[in-house]
Amino acid sequence: MSDLLVPETRVLAVASHVVYGHVGNTMAEFVMQSLGCDVAALNTVHFSNHTGYRQFKGTRATAQEITDLYQGLCQSNLTDFDVMLSGYAPSAAAVEAVGAIGIDLQTKAASKPGSFFWVLDPVMGDQGRLYVNDDVVPAYKKMIQHADLILPNQFEAEVLSGIKITSLATLAEAITAIHRIYKVPHVIITSVQLLKLSHSDSTPSPPDNYLTVIGSTTRSDGSARLFRVDVPALDCFFSGTGDMFAALTVARLREAVFAAGPELRNTASWVSPDEVVSADLPLAQATLKVLSSMHSVLERTMEARNAELASAALVSAPSGDLSVEEQQKQEHLRRTKAAEVRLVRNARFLRDPLVQFAVQDWSKEDLPDQL
Amino acid sequence: MSDLLVPETRVLAVASHVVYGHVGNTMAEFVMQSLGCDVAALNTVHFSNHTGYRQFKGTRATAQEITDLYQGLCQSNLTDFDVMLSGYAPSAAAVEAVGAIGIDLQTKAASKPGSFFWVLDPVMGDQGRLYVNDDVVPAYKKMIQHADLILPNQFEAEVLSGIKITSLATLAEAITAIHRIYKVPHVIITSVQLLKLSHSDSTPSPPDNYLTVIGSTTRSDGSARLFRVDVPALDCFFSGTGDMFAALTVARLREAVFAAGPELRNTASWVSPDEVVSADLPLAQATLKVLSSMHSVLERTMEARNAELASAALVSAPSGDLSVEEQQKQEHLRRTKAAEVRLVRNARFLRDPLVQFAVQDWSKEDLPDQL
Repeated sequence: MSDLLVPETRVLAVASHVVYGHVGNTMAEFVMQSLGCDVAALNTVHFSNHTGYRQFKGTRATAQEITDLYQGLCQSNLTDFDVMLSGYAPSAAAVEAVGAIGIDLQTKAASKPGSFFWVLDPVMGDQGRLYVNDDVVPAYKKMIQHADLILPNQFEAEVLSGIKITSLATLAEAITAIHRIYKVPHVIITSVQLLKLSHSDSTPSPPDNYLTVIGSTTRSDGSARLFRVDVPALDCFFSGTGDMFAALTVARLREAVFAAGPELRNTASWVSPDEVVSADLPLAQATLKVLSSMHSVLERTMEARNAELASAALVSAPSGDLSVEEQQKQEHLRRTKAAEVRLVRNARFLRDPLVQFAVQDWSKEDLPDQL
Repeated sequence: MSDLLVPETRVLAVASHVVYGHVGNTMAEFVMQSLGCDVAALNTVHFSNHTGYRQFKGTRATAQEITDLYQGLCQSNLTDFDVMLSGYAPSAAAVEAVGAIGIDLQTKAASKPGSFFWVLDPVMGDQGRLYVNDDVVPAYKKMIQHADLILPNQFEAEVLSGIKITSLATLAEAITAIHRIYKVPHVIITSVQLLKLSHSDSTPSPPDNYLTVIGSTTRSDGSARLFRVDVPALDCFFSGTGDMFAALTVARLREAVFAAGPELRNTASWVSPDEVVSADLPLAQATLKVLSSMHSVLERTMEARNAELASAALVSAPSGDLSVEEQQKQEHLRRTKAAEVRLVRNARFLRDPLVQFAVQDWSKEDLPDQL
């Protein structure tokens, strides 16, 4: 019986924790464990539920508490991690504390290139606005140069690159700039909604209602080696999908790097030789599996959500006693809960993705002249 | 493809969290998720590692923080739990806060018998000594009457029953007393080392180096309905096995109760009719699968531990610079780390137990006269 597990991988996952639902580490931990990774979860907040409910209770870890937990691991020789995945931290000082952990692990692994890999999700905002304090941005900007792979969304990529993404050309420009400014060897920009972009350039557009994921592993001259995957968008907002993406990417990238042979995994930052075309990059192959798993899980989540909302609508009592405001609040809570990712019951799609998308080589040559 | 999942189950798990390794919720959450349970983990401490290392860093949640997190769930209608599993809480006030959560969930479910079930692990001590403050004991004693199933170890059963367990007869007496004093319908005493007991009574002893697990579901007259499973003991101490037992029991008991048909699961506390003999109890059938999964995982853990210790011994540098005390400390840390349960890579044994033990009906008739 095949277990469908990726090669043994010890991950330090630093992100938020919620009691109910699946975001941050409460998403990433189970996703990586399902694929066979040993996950040490260092939680940066302890909340009752995700903030999309518009109300929650709980506490944030201070920078000192984050540092202390890591020092606890150090003093007992419990830092033999192959990968660190860092996500949300609740303040600039906390981001810096997480950064110091990544740098320390990197320093410890310095004599063995490729033995430690840092995946950084620079959680700062979405949809055109920051949801962290302003001082978190420079904290990330200082830290990203140490990461091996970063996973900004479209807005975060704009913040980091200083380039407004309005077209496929400016998207490629932003990735190129991120490679250049931060010397970060791998980048994936998750969830680009190309429909919202101007299609004035000559690059073929994806069909309507598709999301585009663009990634790149740098070449030895520092240039971008771009690939692109288009996936159908689902008509629903789910919380935690960025964390699901990051966690699956950790496991699948490690798997793809192992599949490429011992030389690559003993290379600093797992950067493939220049002759590897973008569609054959481990990062591209990993992204295909990641998006396939996600699409299956989210498709089933949407079905379950629709069924839950329909059945709840049938039984909901008349709410004459509630103010309009209170009725709207209750309806928001109900819809938010119904959209929680159905993670655990669909774990088989994490372990065994049905690859249903294609990766496109998206080298500079294909891009319009204005790039 | 069978998923090997138990019926859909929403669990609120209240216990400790560690970054590295698997104890408390860091054990129970993944175990229950592997079997398909949706787990909401409310963490009572946030430590770097388990206390068996003899050093750790981190913070304890206050009773107020525990209550706040639960209030956060309540205010957003996120309390639709089928089961609560409560374990370690770091103070008497925290134990009481956890108890109030269990009672509140029970009250909310009062109109639907069987729709909520509380599994309580009264974590107080082991091997003849308390490792909590003295005031935790009365806090548990007040709370247990509300639980549906409790999972004390031998020492905790002695504390709760007031009966010193020195023989199979006194073991049965302790369970009978727990049913009587606390009106708790299901009890399992985990990890009884019968080798240490006097075998002066006439009940057949298990072979050498076996652990005995004794359980009971009460009859309608309040008497015990005892069953017993003997399992080979492994020659190694593992942390978190009590939490593994509890988590597997939640999932497997729910599965067995569903298999018994809709009547039982709509009965308060899932108490089987009197005519069901002890070996056929859902609790007994669940225990068999639980112990089989555990034995497979721990057997593989011990193999991996032995290999790790052997290989580390080969490469360990001369430690001439370290004091004897420091060498001993490093050796203890190394051995403790090596004995961490190999949970994630062996998840298939959680999902698909190879049942290799037998359950024995152990009714009063078989017990010696002195009972």
